[in-house]
Amino acid sequence: MAQNNVSPWIENAAEAPVEMSARIRLARNIRHIPFPHMVRDGDALDEVLEKLGAAFDEYQKVSMNMLKFEDKALLVEKHLISPLFTRQGLHSYINEEESVSIMVNEEDHIRIQTMGAGIPIQDLYREAEAIDESLEDVVDYAFDENFGYLTACPTNVGTGMRASIMLHLPALTLGRKIERLSGNLNRFGFTLRGIYGEGSVPLGQIYQLSNQLTLGQTEEEIIQNLDELKSQIIEEELEMRSRLQSEHLLEVKDSVHRSYGILKHAYKMSLKEAAKCLSDVKLGIDLGVLEQKNFKFQKWIQLIQPAFLKMRLNEQHKHYTSLEQAVDEERATLMRELSGGK
Amino acid sequence: MAQNNVSPWIENAAEAPVEMSARIRLARNIRHIPFPHMVRDGDALDEVLEKLGAAFDEYQKVSMNMLKFEDKALLVEKHLISPLFTRQGLHSYINEEESVSIMVNEEDHIRIQTMGAGIPIQDLYREAEAIDESLEDVVDYAFDENFGYLTACPTNVGTGMRASIMLHLPALTLGRKIERLSGNLNRFGFTLRGIYGEGSVPLGQIYQLSNQLTLGQTEEEIIQNLDELKSQIIEEELEMRSRLQSEHLLEVKDSVHRSYGILKHAYKMSLKEAAKCLSDVKLGIDLGVLEQKNFKFQKWIQLIQPAFLKMRLNEQHKHYTSLEQAVDEERATLMRELSGGK
Repeated sequence: MAQNNVSPWIENAAEAPVEMSARIRLARNIRHIPFPHMVRDGDALDEVLEKLGAAFDEYQKVSMNMLKFEDKALLVEKHLISPLFTRQGLHSYINEEESVSIMVNEEDHIRIQTMGAGIPIQDLYREAEAIDESLEDVVDYAFDENFGYLTACPTNVGTGMRASIMLHLPALTLGRKIERLSGNLNRFGFTLRGIYGEGSVPLGQIYQLSNQLTLGQTEEEIIQNLDELKSQIIEEELEMRSRLQSEHLLEVKDSVHRSYGILKHAYKMSLKEAAKCLSDVKLGIDLGVLEQKNFKFQKWIQLIQPAFLKMRLNEQHKHYTSLEQAVDEERATLMRELSGGK
Repeated sequence: MAQNNVSPWIENAAEAPVEMSARIRLARNIRHIPFPHMVRDGDALDEVLEKLGAAFDEYQKVSMNMLKFEDKALLVEKHLISPLFTRQGLHSYINEEESVSIMVNEEDHIRIQTMGAGIPIQDLYREAEAIDESLEDVVDYAFDENFGYLTACPTNVGTGMRASIMLHLPALTLGRKIERLSGNLNRFGFTLRGIYGEGSVPLGQIYQLSNQLTLGQTEEEIIQNLDELKSQIIEEELEMRSRLQSEHLLEVKDSVHRSYGILKHAYKMSLKEAAKCLSDVKLGIDLGVLEQKNFKFQKWIQLIQPAFLKMRLNEQHKHYTSLEQAVDEERATLMRELSGGK
């Protein structure tokens, strides 16, 4: 696993307008072993690992207590482990593409996660389901006839599934349509929120559409609903983009090209600004007002994250007095390189 | 006179750090003819013209009542006439280089103006003095033994001379040193103020250093004092630039290159922003943090002015709904062309 690079599945992801990637996460627990947060000594957690045995021999096993802080931060940025998942004695199994990770002893005993770009979310679910079924041959899941899968947090009980789709919504953001949209989605048991950062406008105008409910619906129903809502949101985004183009072409062209100019010329750049500029350039390319052949939105959004840049700084043995400033400088250097500036 | 181009003397001006150009203006009036603002009918003004006769036959005679509004605006931007000088029946004689203009019947009967870049202000004074002396053979100046030259406005009585030097002071502006400097200069009878626009930071961080007093000192004394003060200000500016470079190199490099990126990539731009970006780029070149071979600060500062851009729009027969927006768009187009953007 080349930790200093983006995940192969992102490296190879095709660029599409609006839809970026999707993710399935199944939460599973083993019968008769207490949930991780109830465990005081590590023996019970070791038992989980033992029970899994050789189930994931084909994957790379990453033990959290073997990793330095910055390596963990990188895995978090790659969505291969959750931010919580940095306790001692926890493990993750990761495939070569870094599109599958099985987290052991995080919030639940087992969390199966599949990610992909340009792949129908149904396929990602099938991939997770296959892993799930193979595990069922090895371990005895905590399952209740009425409730379904039992999980550490009650919000996951039932299917134990969280399905999410990452969407780039710059026009809906600009048009201040996100809040209304988000409110409507909540009523159907879905949420729409920024992936990176907080505040009213998320980093890179990238949002995650996901199911909130795990009870009362089958996995297939949830996924189908999610997929339909996604299509509606994409349609609304594209409609807003058309309006931008027909009513505010000069303004859009101007702001898109300015952002491109900043990526090409700046010598220091905050994460927030870099994400905004990348988002603008992506929008410009999608609208046909900017040509940039080698632009890779998903990849570059990963590369501007702090842990990635710290890794680069370490590799180059760069000296600095302020890490934060060095990261902002390295971010700008990388953006200049990638966008063909000097 | 190619009105749609910058003046030849600016086109050919060498780029220097800080010092841009200089100007001498002599105010003269003819004995026994009332000052222009006292004249109700045009006969007295015609008399001034008659008296001048063939004195400026070698120059181009520009009659204000023959010009359209936009042509006058262009001459104002070129500093060949003053903004006041747009009344009917007034004239200006302009040489081929557009470095000499003799305004007739503006505030005073005659105003002799010489401009230049990379020329000692002493030489510009000598040039104006030679014109002044040749005129003295033709007309009888209003001159008082005690007061010197009499002028329409009492602030010009005495030498009737206004000598000014244009300076680019981005570092002193950034370091908020202008106000103190300006206060000190006032005590010596000199002023330092923005050429273009109002507000605390003038357009392009370009200032005009000039004498306020025209009484009690000879022309030579005024010019020598002005020249010495100029050298002091230049020294202070260069010292501030060194400090910027040694203490804030990354910040300077970043802001300079961002401004360059905006010039190269924007699709609409206000006068204020364009002037700020040009000023940054000029500073970057002077500091050696940006290379830009064909950059011409004085020329480009002229080209971004509204009347120049309106002229370009007219030449291209462009259609627009809002003139102001069309000018902002044309300004960005021109900047992209000149800075090598697309």
